[in-house]
Amino acid sequence: MSDKVLRIGVVLAGCGVYDGAEIHEAVCTLLAISKAGAQALCFAPDIPQAHVINHLTGAETGESRNVLVEAARIARGKIQPLSAFSADAVDALIFPGGFGAAKNLCDFAFKGADCAVNPDAAAAVAAMRAAGKPIGALCIAPAILARLLGGEGVEVTIGDEAGTAAALESMGAKHRVTAAGEVVVDRRLKVATSPCYMLDSSLAEIAQGADNTVKALIELVD
Amino acid sequence: MSDKVLRIGVVLAGCGVYDGAEIHEAVCTLLAISKAGAQALCFAPDIPQAHVINHLTGAETGESRNVLVEAARIARGKIQPLSAFSADAVDALIFPGGFGAAKNLCDFAFKGADCAVNPDAAAAVAAMRAAGKPIGALCIAPAILARLLGGEGVEVTIGDEAGTAAALESMGAKHRVTAAGEVVVDRRLKVATSPCYMLDSSLAEIAQGADNTVKALIELVD
Repeated sequence: MSDKVLRIGVVLAGCGVYDGAEIHEAVCTLLAISKAGAQALCFAPDIPQAHVINHLTGAETGESRNVLVEAARIARGKIQPLSAFSADAVDALIFPGGFGAAKNLCDFAFKGADCAVNPDAAAAVAAMRAAGKPIGALCIAPAILARLLGGEGVEVTIGDEAGTAAALESMGAKHRVTAAGEVVVDRRLKVATSPCYMLDSSLAEIAQGADNTVKALIELVD
Repeated sequence: MSDKVLRIGVVLAGCGVYDGAEIHEAVCTLLAISKAGAQALCFAPDIPQAHVINHLTGAETGESRNVLVEAARIARGKIQPLSAFSADAVDALIFPGGFGAAKNLCDFAFKGADCAVNPDAAAAVAAMRAAGKPIGALCIAPAILARLLGGEGVEVTIGDEAGTAAALESMGAKHRVTAAGEVVVDRRLKVATSPCYMLDSSLAEIAQGADNTVKALIELVD
């Protein structure tokens, strides 16, 4: 690490826990980056959401919304399409959670261990891995890394839910149970994960998990 | 203040800086409440948004969205209609900012000093004032308090923008210029305000402003 300002890419999956990026995790990630004196660069895929959920009732609305356009709400308009991502432009990359990570960035919420990853998200992870740069994931987003890096035996956490952990292990990942705010760091593959809202947590604990994950990523930067 | 868990009402104006609640300010407010060991109770008016803005392009979309339904995204579904608000149920009340505070909770963004306040928001502020309980507001939301409490000479800040400050003063408020993270406390009326994104601030500074405002509210609780 030099004294230069680190740039950390943040991949958002929409705007709202049930059909997009989990807003608390996304903002706590951006806050952790700001507090660390680093610069956040936001990205999201320019694709339709898998569906739109009324967050008051939990029902599908039948509307169509775009992941990039909705994610721009969290990013205050400062966001790029994930197809424009280059590993050269960032020092680290992080995926906050929310159902959008498992519905829009991949289809783990619908297909479990048979899931496929959005091509732009897969390309971003592959580029970071090829560049030897660190990747973080919160909440359910480690499912994306299990799918893409399970063949290399990536070590991750999604908290303590046995069925979800088993699905990640069936994709080749090694799962470790964690408590609120804790981070699992795979130093070999430079991957840091924290359970966040996969556990029944307070918002203060979510912020701690995001802080600890961002700190772990910064420590992994060459 | 006793040892009981304080309950702080949070009034959300939608979900997104340009047509709803400013997401960073809203989450930092909820985080400040969580870190203080208090309980947040979220409210929003059950009304259509003034309009819907595409946060990627800045253009109006022509869609119709409901303030309560969109605010539920920030509240993870745990939110009540503002019409159900009772001052008996909370120890303090706070309004995060964003254009929604000036488009949905009142129409200051469209009418300036001639603005009117949403009846449910006006009733909530009147009930808190009558009960002698503290009220906070961030960013542009102090415009609501200037309209409702300007007749009593409420002292507020909206940062350092002269034209906006003049509009608030023409409604009877006393305006004080502030720097990032600072709070203006009107001890007589029990009102605490902080400029947040009315100034060109980092997210870490937004969090500091929200923290300081929530701490000021807690100190004002009898």
